[in-house]
Amino acid sequence: MTERAPTFYFPAPRTQKFCSQCGSPLTRMVPPDDNRQRDVCEHCGAIHYQNPRNVVGVLPVWEDKILLCRRAIEPRYNTWTLPAGFMELGETTAHGAVRETDEEAGVQIELGPLYTVIDVPHAEQVHFFYLAKVLDPGLNPGPETLEAGYFAAHEIPWEELSFRTVITTLEHYLHDKKNGVFPIHHYSVPHPLPKG
Amino acid sequence: MTERAPTFYFPAPRTQKFCSQCGSPLTRMVPPDDNRQRDVCEHCGAIHYQNPRNVVGVLPVWEDKILLCRRAIEPRYNTWTLPAGFMELGETTAHGAVRETDEEAGVQIELGPLYTVIDVPHAEQVHFFYLAKVLDPGLNPGPETLEAGYFAAHEIPWEELSFRTVITTLEHYLHDKKNGVFPIHHYSVPHPLPKG
Repeated sequence: MTERAPTFYFPAPRTQKFCSQCGSPLTRMVPPDDNRQRDVCEHCGAIHYQNPRNVVGVLPVWEDKILLCRRAIEPRYNTWTLPAGFMELGETTAHGAVRETDEEAGVQIELGPLYTVIDVPHAEQVHFFYLAKVLDPGLNPGPETLEAGYFAAHEIPWEELSFRTVITTLEHYLHDKKNGVFPIHHYSVPHPLPKG
Repeated sequence: MTERAPTFYFPAPRTQKFCSQCGSPLTRMVPPDDNRQRDVCEHCGAIHYQNPRNVVGVLPVWEDKILLCRRAIEPRYNTWTLPAGFMELGETTAHGAVRETDEEAGVQIELGPLYTVIDVPHAEQVHFFYLAKVLDPGLNPGPETLEAGYFAAHEIPWEELSFRTVITTLEHYLHDKKNGVFPIHHYSVPHPLPKG
């Protein structure tokens, strides 16, 4: 519906140059009564704090198989992932997880308990994955997904998964499944080692 | 150290008028391949997403008492709280919780497990509280705290507590203390009812 190509648009990066309130150039400084550098507007006084983002997702299970989606977007284009995405304003982690599952896989689920809470400090994120039961296996993937499908434990494409939070959530699930008990797991993933 | 009064500065609100990348006025629109309104720069193409923030804190225990801090800042000035504040870029929820405890109470702790994870959708926040053991009861409150002190269960000023996430975290703790088992609690707090 727009006359511009979608590739014209990009997410605003963390680096901020101008004040969102008055449009003046920003100064990097430690504000009064603070202890770290912020982007500050010395014209209108606005301090532009930045904070980590939450990624919310689901581990959806149909009978004995797990639903995975192949990413149609960067980062990690063409790798397999659990349905997940950035938490939006005004929603809970649970609402966001259900919304992302609908947007990426187009599948109806019954949300279960929160399962993994994972600190990812180098990405400035916290990831949350819920367990969920797929109510009807029909899939209708959205534009962020190349394809979606169900995988038995031995079919999971471990070498083609998107993120370590997805890998570790799947690992915890397959381990806990043996015991039939699924407690909340909370942990951090360290900065990845450079390849090569 | 600044010649301006600290009150000159204020946190930039959610409402954004100008692009942080090029300073042009923003347009409220649904970007291509998106499904909700964003602040978009039609000059440079930057999409200014906004996301919920995390608040990270601690329930610090010394012998049989809980450490509380009386707030020297808005909102909820002069009410009692657990040490907590906004998670910063580059840290884990655990690092942030320890930092806030140091900044607000000036006390040394041994951090325990994550204890409550609380969705607060009307505030566009998720709150995390860790259990912690106070290593030395000496206190050195920072500028965001009027005073800090230790409270036995029957001394907790329930009517003067700051936030429902603090109240419910204390309630869970006192309940779980009877059983000696402290599992992670995950829940949401609904929008508060208007008073009167």
